[in-house]
This record gives sequence, structure tokens and C-alpha cells, in this order.
Amino acid sequence: MSQVEKQLADTKAQIESEIPDDISVTDVKYEGPELVIYTRHPKEFAQDGDLVRRLASKLRKRITVRPHPDVLSKPKEARAKIEDIIPDDAGVADLDFHEDTGEVVIEAEKPGMVIGRRGSTLREITQEVGWTPEVVRTPPIESSTVSNVRNFLKQEREERRDILERVGRTIHREEMADEQWVRITTLGCCREVGRASFILNTAETRILIDCGDKPGAEGEVPYLQVPEALGAGAQNLDAVVLTHAHLDHSALIPLLFKYGYDGPIYCTEPTRDLMGLLTLDYLDVASKEGRTPPYESAQVREAIKHTIPLEYGDVTDIAPDVKLTFHNAGHILGSAVSHFHIGDGLYNVCFSGDIHYDDTRLFNGAVNDFPRVETLVMESTYGGRNDYQTDQEDSERKLIEVINETYENDGKVLIPAFAVGRSQEIMMVLEEAMRTDKIPEMPVHLDGMIWEATAIHTTYPEYLRDELRDRIFHEDENPFLADQFNHIDGGEDERQEVADGGPCIVLSTSGMMTGGPIMSWLRHLGTEENSTLTFVGYQAQGTLGRRIQNGWDEIPVQDPRDRSRKSTISLRMGVEVVDGFSGHADRQGLENFVKTMNPRPEKVLCVHGDERSVQDFSSALYHDYNMRTFAPKNLETFRFK
Amino acid sequence: MSQVEKQLADTKAQIESEIPDDISVTDVKYEGPELVIYTRHPKEFAQDGDLVRRLASKLRKRITVRPHPDVLSKPKEARAKIEDIIPDDAGVADLDFHEDTGEVVIEAEKPGMVIGRRGSTLREITQEVGWTPEVVRTPPIESSTVSNVRNFLKQEREERRDILERVGRTIHREEMADEQWVRITTLGCCREVGRASFILNTAETRILIDCGDKPGAEGEVPYLQVPEALGAGAQNLDAVVLTHAHLDHSALIPLLFKYGYDGPIYCTEPTRDLMGLLTLDYLDVASKEGRTPPYESAQVREAIKHTIPLEYGDVTDIAPDVKLTFHNAGHILGSAVSHFHIGDGLYNVCFSGDIHYDDTRLFNGAVNDFPRVETLVMESTYGGRNDYQTDQEDSERKLIEVINETYENDGKVLIPAFAVGRSQEIMMVLEEAMRTDKIPEMPVHLDGMIWEATAIHTTYPEYLRDELRDRIFHEDENPFLADQFNHIDGGEDERQEVADGGPCIVLSTSGMMTGGPIMSWLRHLGTEENSTLTFVGYQAQGTLGRRIQNGWDEIPVQDPRDRSRKSTISLRMGVEVVDGFSGHADRQGLENFVKTMNPRPEKVLCVHGDERSVQDFSSALYHDYNMRTFAPKNLETFRFK
Ligand SMILES: [Zn+2]
Ligand SMILES: [Zn+2]
Ligand SMILES: [Zn+2]
Ligand SMILES: [Zn+2]
Ligand SMILES: [Zn+2]
Repeated sequence: MSQVEKQLADTKAQIESEIPDDISVTDVKYEGPELVIYTRHPKEFAQDGDLVRRLASKLRKRITVRPHPDVLSKPKEARAKIEDIIPDDAGVADLDFHEDTGEVVIEAEKPGMVIGRRGSTLREITQEVGWTPEVVRTPPIESSTVSNVRNFLKQEREERRDILERVGRTIHREEMADEQWVRITTLGCCREVGRASFILNTAETRILIDCGDKPGAEGEVPYLQVPEALGAGAQNLDAVVLTHAHLDHSALIPLLFKYGYDGPIYCTEPTRDLMGLLTLDYLDVASKEGRTPPYESAQVREAIKHTIPLEYGDVTDIAPDVKLTFHNAGHILGSAVSHFHIGDGLYNVCFSGDIHYDDTRLFNGAVNDFPRVETLVMESTYGGRNDYQTDQEDSERKLIEVINETYENDGKVLIPAFAVGRSQEIMMVLEEAMRTDKIPEMPVHLDGMIWEATAIHTTYPEYLRDELRDRIFHEDENPFLADQFNHIDGGEDERQEVADGGPCIVLSTSGMMTGGPIMSWLRHLGTEENSTLTFVGYQAQGTLGRRIQNGWDEIPVQDPRDRSRKSTISLRMGVEVVDGFSGHADRQGLENFVKTMNPRPEKVLCVHGDERSVQDFSSALYHDYNMRTFAPKNLETFRFK
Repeated sequence: MSQVEKQLADTKAQIESEIPDDISVTDVKYEGPELVIYTRHPKEFAQDGDLVRRLASKLRKRITVRPHPDVLSKPKEARAKIEDIIPDDAGVADLDFHEDTGEVVIEAEKPGMVIGRRGSTLREITQEVGWTPEVVRTPPIESSTVSNVRNFLKQEREERRDILERVGRTIHREEMADEQWVRITTLGCCREVGRASFILNTAETRILIDCGDKPGAEGEVPYLQVPEALGAGAQNLDAVVLTHAHLDHSALIPLLFKYGYDGPIYCTEPTRDLMGLLTLDYLDVASKEGRTPPYESAQVREAIKHTIPLEYGDVTDIAPDVKLTFHNAGHILGSAVSHFHIGDGLYNVCFSGDIHYDDTRLFNGAVNDFPRVETLVMESTYGGRNDYQTDQEDSERKLIEVINETYENDGKVLIPAFAVGRSQEIMMVLEEAMRTDKIPEMPVHLDGMIWEATAIHTTYPEYLRDELRDRIFHEDENPFLADQFNHIDGGEDERQEVADGGPCIVLSTSGMMTGGPIMSWLRHLGTEENSTLTFVGYQAQGTLGRRIQNGWDEIPVQDPRDRSRKSTISLRMGVEVVDGFSGHADRQGLENFVKTMNPRPEKVLCVHGDERSVQDFSSALYHDYNMRTFAPKNLETFRFK
């Protein structure tokens, strides 16, 4: 009997001693971080609403109860009963019965109504039919990403169960090391923005946090080949944790599977879907630009298959000596501050990932309240001494002004924007401004991946700001479904039509005008004197966006239907810059995050910022708040215990 | 054709174009760091005294020329001719012909006379007989260590040639990395004394420097299991460099071979022999104390077989991107400051090892003059703010006083001493004091490994201080051969005899009275009021030596012939402490080493000292000399480029 088998047998005995005698336990298994209890008495298990909670706290594990296959009612009968129990308003779209595990996946427009108050409806379902219900939301806006991911996972169900069982056994293996220590190695994003990647190493466990690319510097990838990372073989990595889906954190996650990694990726559910969307687009852009991508779409699928989604606040065992908890980071959908509790109280490390400290229209501000934290690894994008941003209120006022003026001139407002995050923020500003008559009603055209990214946002309203979430729950108030928003899905013909029409707003990718449909819009609108090109995001050195901000007015363009036809247009439209919509905390926000952090960290590693930003921020924290701060270089290792 | 084959073929062609047409080159091979040229014309090669030197500087390699087997004269004939050429005074003891390589090993009492002025005699030998001569010294005092090592290496000759060829190919492999960086990871001896061990890691190469134990804390071994060290597999280590033979640097070197390491150990020749002596004793002590030693004597033999000895000043390729040069460290016989030149000018790191900055009787002071050094990894044993030692002159005066007083009282002087280093230093003090009548002539008894360690010292006079070396070259002046010195090789009987006899001096191991023959001497002399126990070295916390210094006078002893018989003696003999004979630089010496270093290093890592010593020394260097200094912890990684 292996050590894990013995552990499971002990656990089974312990469960049996804790539950009433009339409830049988047929099997106990690990599935990823969860302990799954199989029983011939699922109904009795469900009767006591508190039983699972008590077991979980006793065993200090996350617990799922599943019915033994023998006691399942027939799917046809179960379907009828389930449809009977769930209120019609829940909008059940699909019931999917998995006989191997006794799970029934219920897709509904309003998952909350399927769950019921504190899970009462779910328990009722189990009591009636024996099956274990699992609930997913029908995206209010159809999302090909979400449905592709769901279909793919359904199809790979069996392999995924194998993966989860294997991961579960690894997580719950016996600790081997007779010493304890905690180290962090920086593999990227130190004194630079891009290629975020860290190794968290204990005597027992090796964890990779993020694995991004460096935009505009394709050769500069994380130092994965060093022995602390994959140099010793990908099989030595216990887990990968992804803080959020931006490519500077996620682009090279699929590459790990090409290098032989076969373990779990921990991230939130929206991060998983957005990572799928963005990495596939990353491959697409690379091949369009004639570069050989470092991996293929097969590895993106592997990454999705190996993802174990966690919710904010779930304390999860990811190794014998490491518990991971995600908290809202306020940066983009699903972005997470990642807290690692190591060695049963030995040490606590928190990786901020990218954060926004103040509330925005889309998200609550980043969480900075933890049971314990000794070391904080902190983003410093706007850590420079003068990196203060305009208040979003003032920025919104300026944007409204620009739109009104352009409208009065009978012009159009063209806004280059990133698909994920800032586009949705601007959409919320525009929707409210029209609803409250601060700007006239007019069409808002969404081009590029913006529509799809928006659809993913509406699939996971739990991750949005409270007020916004509540509005999405009521279909008639879902601001993303407002009539003004139009998805440009008719290509050049539709763009031509819009260009020939009246005043409107166009939101289009790419955000820095380095390609994508914005180039086509520039061709259509660039020469219109009464229209306005409006920047709402940071334009990096070397991008067309930055050049236009610097005064360029002869713009090379190409005909999208015949790429060999190149020409130049003279930019006539007005150019406006409205900052203050960043997804990143500014210097003040970064300081506030650290100084109000509870508890106060002993050490802060300032990363994810250029040389000047990390130095400024690090020395400010040291002088003003008397913390031990560091501005590490790539490829350094810090030992904390 | 592999890349190395191609490189060798190119090298052969280049050699052929550089040498006269009438000299043939039959083969070109790597043997460790050396390039070996086989020729049918060894005599012609030897004729031009400058040819090899010119080739070496052209090819930037160390070169050895060997005759093709076909052209070798018969050993019998060659022997006669060689004996004819070498002056009788050289004292040739043995000629050993190796037909496989065309080498003849000449063992002589005076190797200098075999070599001749600038190698003239060696060249004459080759011109006459074709064979390539190699010269070793007959130990002036018979040393079982030296003869065991020599016999073992003779017997393992073939396997050793295979090892050297394999190592040579690894050293000269093509560089693979497209980036360059330099990192150091601390595996031990940070904020502590003991378990010295570092990893020097470039994008191309991984080198382990030292691998010692921590005396008095057997469980605390270097962190070899981390991925940067052996965690990624011992086969990923390119080379091991050993600064000197003390066990806190060498004890676990043989263990590497148990872990699967199969590459070279670079150290000086005396360090190799002393490592053999000390690690075998380490195994012996462990088994006597009932501990299971971490390896067996077979691994000590492996370590010796894999040793590639280097001389001070030899610039040696040990990896495609790393050149190693040893310099005298002044600490013990063969101890080396190790200089690494990385990436053809990219970076230079110097490991001080243990040093003594001022000249002592045995050694010239440590070298601190280098072509380039950016980072210095510096020992700090006596780096504390008050760690100033008595001048050796004053210490010698005090020792002489103690001896004279004891002599006048008709007593004996008992000195516990480490076998390697301090014993020989004291021997030199005593020999001079008697020769110059500062103390009366009396027997000096040497017990434990002191005699054997002394024999090794006399085998390598090149590593001793100039004046001492010159005296050893003249047999009648060799101070180690002075009549007073008596090797206690008759066990308890002889000790009893000495104890019953008149005034004398006894030097015995162990140096901190933690075991060894000193315990027996204590039993014999401990109760004699007119004798003196004289400490000349540091006594660590927890040792009997320290306890006696602290006033203990009831000493537990056991009968050496019947270990079960334990008793207690009341210490009556006088106790004196004479410091100033340390093998380590004191605070002033450490400061002088760094401040007069040429060039001045940019960064200094202060290691090999307790918490207070490294902190004091590090902050002093920072404040007084404005250097970037660090007091690293174990398991940290610094990146320098
Ligand atoms: Zn981000
Ligand atoms: Zn980022
Ligand atoms: Zn970002
Ligand atoms: Zn030493
Ligand atoms: Zn040492």
C-alpha cells in the first residue's frame, strides 16, 4: 500500500467515524486539491446541510460528495425532477449527466436561482435524485471562447479526471525534506515590464508563478532554462500559478507543456478563458507577422485541460507544504493577488500580480488584507516618483467633452483600446453618459476582440464590481447589452458603412495601433478633419500610437483587401489624449496598497516596472514606511526562511 | 564528425602549418585542460626550446608533446641514457616508463636538477631518447599518503586517461547559450563557519567551489540538494574546485561521487594529498564515534582519481567560458585563492578561500594581485570589530617564555595542535629557538597525524615560503629533519616512556582536545604540577579545550587500551594560552587584503564567519572603502552580469 493509499484509507475511517452510521462511504479519492467522498447515501449526506462543512474543517480539506453509480436515478427521471425543482425564472438551458462521477452540469441564465439560498436548492436536487449538481452560467452575450472551452473540457473529461487524480496524489504526498526553507527566484520582469515569471521554492516544492512574454522584445523570454526553473526537468515543477491573463504574464504558459510539464495550472475561471483567447490570438499575430510561434494551439488546449480553477478566497492545498489563496486584484477580469501560506505557519508570501488599488467601474479595488504576510512581491509599473494619474472622474469628464465637441462637428470618435479590460471600462463610461444624457445617444461600434472579451466579462459577473454584477443579474439592466453597442462583424463592408454614416464612437484594437482593425479605421477616418482620434491608454515607445502622439501626420497604411497595396494618408483628424483609465494603480495607489496592507509585510520586492520605477518605489517604501525593500534583478534568488 | 573532432582536426592542421615541414603530427588529443600533440619527431620538437611556448600562445591552450609509440627507444636503453644525462646529485630514485603515452616518470630527491635551467635537461632527455619526462619529488620524509596516492594513480592510469579525455572534450565543447550571465549561489558557510560551498553558474557552465562539513554540527551539510547544485543531477556539474584541504572545505568532496558526479576536481597537488589524508581520517573518526559516515574510502579514491592538479599561476580552461587560476593563499599547504575569468572578459570572480595576509614562517602571504576582479567572495573568520590578533613575534616570545619556565621546573610542555598547518608553524618556531639558543635543546615529540602531515609539507617545498623552500632543498638544512623531532610511532609504550623521562615538548592532535592521542597525553601528564598545557589555536565552544580554558579541572578520561574503563583526573598542570599563530588573517589582515587588492573589486560577499563577524566586516568595507558589500545568507543567489 503506497503512502497515499494509506492516507486515503485513514481518511475514510475518520470520515466513517464522524458521520451517522446509516451513511455509507464507498470510496475516498483525491481530485486535484479536493477530497471526493463516494457514498450510497447521497441524499442522507445532503440532508444535513452542515455535515460537509464540519467534515471539511475537521479534515482541513476541501470536500465534494458524489453518489455511488449504483444509487443514481435514471437521467431521464432525474431530468424531469430537476426541472421541477428549479424555478422557471432560472432559465435552465442545458442538463448534462455524467454517469462516471454522478455529476449533473446545469447550465442556466441565472445560476443563483439554481443554487438557492446558501445552497438549499442544490441540496434539494441531490436529496431528490442522488446526482451531484454543478452549475454554470449561460453567457448573456454568446461567447465562442466560453463555449469552446466548455465543449473541449466535456470532450476531455476522462483524461482530465486522470490528471486531477494524479495531481491530487502529488499534492497530498508525504513531506520528504527534513529541513524547511523558502526561496524566490526572479525569472523575469525585474527592472523591466514584461516576461513576468517567478519561482517559489521550498525544501519540498517548486512553484512557477506566471510565464509571460515581453511585448516588443520577442527574444526576451523568462529565464526558464535555469536549474531552479525547468533546467532540472519540467517534471520537477509542482504547480503553475497564473495571476491574470495579460500576455506579459500568460503568453508562455502553453510553452511549458511543450517542455514536458504535465501538472496543474491554478487560476480563476475567467483567467483560464481569457488566457485561451489571448494566447490563441498571440499565435495568430505571430504567424501573421511571419514569426514562428514558440508553440501551437495544441499546447493552449493542454494548458486549459490542466487548469484547476479557484475562486477568490478559497484556501487550497497545492502541495504538501503550500496553501494558495487568490484575492481580487482589481486589474482585469479574474486577476488575482496570490497568497502562499507555506509550511503550516513557517512563512507567507504574497504576489500582487498587477493591481488596481481603487475601485473602478468594472472592479472592486485590490484586496490587501490577509491572515499573515511576511514578504510581498509587488508590481511597480507606475512606481516612479512622478507617476501620478489623473483621477478617473476628471478623465471621464474630459472624454465626454471630446465626444460632445466631435458630435457637434458632426464627426466620429475613434478610440484605440485593448480588448480586455480598458474597452469594457470605457463601454461602462459611455453607457452611463448616454443614459444620463451627458452625451447624445449614438452608436458605439466594437471592433476586434473587444466583443468577445466583453462576452467573457458577462459570463463571470461574480468577478465584477458589486453594483455592476447586480445590474448584469437583471437582463434588462445589463449595461453591456445596451442597444448602442454594435459588434462589427461584417468586416470592411460594415466599416465602410459606418464611415459613410453619421456621428458615432468606434472602439477598436489594437490598443497601441500596432496592427488589427484600428489600422483600417485609420484609413477610413484618418483624413476627416471633424473626427477625433482619442487615446485612453499608455502608448509604448516604438508604436504608431506613440508616434502619432508625438506629432507624426504622414501615416503608412495598407489596403486590408490587398495587403501589397501600400499608401500613405495625411492624418487630418484631431488627436486627443485622455489618461486616467489605466488598469494599473498609479504611484499613490501602489503606496496605499502597501501602507494600508494588513498585516504590514516585513519585506517588499519591487518588480514589474522599469529601472527608475522600481528604484523610486523601493526607496520610497524604505524611507517612508521603514520596510526592508529590494529592487531585484532577473535571475536572483532570495531566501526568506 | 562531432564538433570536438572537427575542432581537433582544425587544431592539427593549424599546428602543422606552424611547425617546420620535417616534424610530423600523428595525433592531437585533449587530456583534461591540456592539448596533447603526438609526433614521430619528438626530438626535433624538443630541439627548438621555444616551439611549444609559441604554439601554446598561438592556440591559447596548454600543450604537451608526446612521442608516437613507434619512435620510442627501448626502456632499457632509454634508462641508461637518462641516468647518464641527469647529474648524480639529483638523487634519482625511480624511472617509470609508460609505453602507452611515451611518458617516463622520474622520481628524484632534487627535481630541479632533473629539470635543468629553464627545462634544458628535460629537453635533452627527449632529444636523446624520445620519451617525455615527467618529474616528481622523493619525499624527504617518507610519507605513506604521498606514496599511496602515487601508487594508486599509477595503478588507475588507464581509467584516468579515459577520464581526462572525457573531461577535455567537455571543457572544449562548443558554447551553446545565446545569452551570458554569471551567478553565485551560497550553499553553506554564510553567517557561520563551516560547510563552505558555493555554486558558480554561467549560462553555459556550473561549477562547485568547496564542499565541506561543519565541525561539531554533523547534520548541517551544504545545501547540495537544491536545483542549482545537484538537485538537477550531478551530471550537470562541470567542475569542482577545492580551495584547500581543511575539512570545512573538503570533507564532503568524496560524497559527490556517491551522488553520481564523474567530473574533475581542480586543486593543487598538496591539497589533493592532504584531502586524501584528512577525509580518510574523517571516516575513521566518524566510525570510532559510532556515526555512519556519509561515504566510504572508495569515494575518497574516486576523488583522488578525478583530481586535476594545478599549480599557482597556471591559467587553465575548465569550461568553454571559464578559466581558473590558483594563487597562494598563505593559509595552509596548497591553499589557493581561486580566480575565475568568465566569458572571455565578461566577468571575473575571485574566491579568497581561507587566507593569511601576512607572511608566516611557513608561507608567503596571500596574493591579492589579479588581472581583473569585479566580485570578491571573501572569508571573514576574524572579521569582527575586535578580532585583532597578537603579532606572531610577540606570540613566539611568549611561547618561548612558557617553554623556558616549564623547563626550569623540570616539566613538560603539552601543545594540542591541528595536524595540518599550525603544527608545522610551531615546529619551525621551536627549531629556530633551539638553533639560536633561545630555548634549550630538548626532544619535540610529534603525535597523531602531525608527522605524516609534515612529510607531505616536505614533499612540496615549492608551496612553502621562499626561505624555507631553499633550506629544504639542502638536506642538511631542512628544518623538519632536525634531530629534536621525534615521531611517536610506538603507541602507549612510547608515550609512557616519554612521560617518565625528562623535560620535553609534545605536539599532539586533536587541536581542540575532542579526541585523538592528546587525550592519552592528558592522562599521562595532566596531574603533573610542573608541566604546562599550552593552547596555540582557537578552541571552539563545546570542546574540551574550551572547557579547560574556562577553568574545568576535573577531566573525564578513558584508558586507551580498554575503552570501557573510564575515570576522572584532576588537572594539575599549568594552563597557558598563546594566540597569534592562527592560519587565518585577523581583522587587520582581512582589511589589508581587500584594501590593497589590485584591482579593487566592485562587490564583496563576506562569508565564512559568524553572524557578527560578517556583518562587522561587511559594513566596515562599505563605510571605509566605499565598496558594495553583502553578508549573504545560505541559499541565496546573486547575479552579477
Ligand atoms: Zn496585467
Ligand atoms: Zn503585467
Ligand atoms: Zn498590464
Ligand atoms: Zn581553512
Ligand atoms: Zn575554512
